[in-house]
Amino acid sequence: MSGWIAIAGLGPGDERLVTPEVTAALTEATDVVGYIPYVARIAPRAGLTLHASDNRVELERAVHALEMAAQGRRVVVASSGDPGVFAMAAALFEALEEGPSHWRDLDIRVLPGITAMLAASARAGAPLGHDFCAINLSDNLKPWALIEKRLRLAAEADFAMAFYNPRSQARPEGFARALDLLRTLCGDDRPILFARAVSTPQEHLRIVMLGEATPDMADMRTMVILGSSRTRLIVRPAGPILYTPRSAPEGAA
Amino acid sequence: MSGWIAIAGLGPGDERLVTPEVTAALTEATDVVGYIPYVARIAPRAGLTLHASDNRVELERAVHALEMAAQGRRVVVASSGDPGVFAMAAALFEALEEGPSHWRDLDIRVLPGITAMLAASARAGAPLGHDFCAINLSDNLKPWALIEKRLRLAAEADFAMAFYNPRSQARPEGFARALDLLRTLCGDDRPILFARAVSTPQEHLRIVMLGEATPDMADMRTMVILGSSRTRLIVRPAGPILYTPRSAPEGAA
Repeated sequence: MSGWIAIAGLGPGDERLVTPEVTAALTEATDVVGYIPYVARIAPRAGLTLHASDNRVELERAVHALEMAAQGRRVVVASSGDPGVFAMAAALFEALEEGPSHWRDLDIRVLPGITAMLAASARAGAPLGHDFCAINLSDNLKPWALIEKRLRLAAEADFAMAFYNPRSQARPEGFARALDLLRTLCGDDRPILFARAVSTPQEHLRIVMLGEATPDMADMRTMVILGSSRTRLIVRPAGPILYTPRSAPEGAA
Repeated sequence: MSGWIAIAGLGPGDERLVTPEVTAALTEATDVVGYIPYVARIAPRAGLTLHASDNRVELERAVHALEMAAQGRRVVVASSGDPGVFAMAAALFEALEEGPSHWRDLDIRVLPGITAMLAASARAGAPLGHDFCAINLSDNLKPWALIEKRLRLAAEADFAMAFYNPRSQARPEGFARALDLLRTLCGDDRPILFARAVSTPQEHLRIVMLGEATPDMADMRTMVILGSSRTRLIVRPAGPILYTPRSAPEGAA
């Protein structure tokens, strides 16, 4: 039995952000499974079977990968960004935990990648330069009340906040509610970054004040980052830099 | 004037985790500045000057990089991990904001890298698979009371928590206090990961329950990740997998 699974992060889109470790795993693989647009990034070659599947079938995809590895195949599970951040690694381990015990003998590795919030942060400056949190705004798998609770506590903690999946397909009004709540908690005068399709030809960055932010500034390909109370804008001819200093003053608690 | 600055993330240590974008910048650079062990990772070559400096001189290093770029040199500022997470990007922008206005005309890019928490998370499974926060436990630049406040609120939010710089040189007892506080907030029965020197030959991973965690399990090269209330351990012959499922039950708020 020489099968394995590598749950691999392809990064945000630019091939220069794919690690050599992931490239090597793809070279050795017999099969790649993943969401259609991610699998589309893999170059076809002899001996490699591409299994593209639709969104929201993560568990079925994970079971498929585990079954193939148990049959001796070398399977890359392709995620965009980092597979451990709101992506396929957790889904695969959910399937592993529920599945037959012999799956626990499989060789399973997670290969990290450049996650969307860090690609977006790099393009804008360093808005996540000090303490921060990452919240998935989709309420497909958790109650909306939990999202609101986390927003309240994150604002009280004065974290910078990175938001994945800002506009849920199931409930598109959620992001408008989140913005309203954040304005109440943080005030209007707080910079917020909308970073769409970072590192791809469709890349578009926009920084506005929270008071001016509207739900239509985000879509399914947008990463949203809200600054902390310490986050600053540096105005430059080439465009602003958004960053959070490393320090907090005495008395900040 | 063709100078530039690339604030580049070298990842956690393994060369296979350095992105091609960073490798290309190093190929084009005339100068590299950084903390001694990070600069030691750069292969010397003709035409490249390595400027290694001690820890805790981030602002001086940033000024040096800006001055050289203003003189037309092509400068890589080397960070381990990702430069935007508790690293050199924020320090450089602090220096830029304080410095002469002509520095704002410089070509400055941030090149993301694999940050320590995601490298550690990948090795252990997917403990950051759902909402999480990242907190720098060093109180060199912020009051300890703010750290404690953030720990309390993060526990209430039920975030998984990634801790950078768990043992501050200036106040080594801080981590013991953090562990005591976290036990009070989260109980003893919560898995915590100590991941030292991930992806290097010195790599060592250890997962214990919070009730068994002791301060000496971490040093300056250790990344610490505490699970949320949902984080699970899968027992396997090859070692446990630590992961946080994607879902939270109704009523979790």
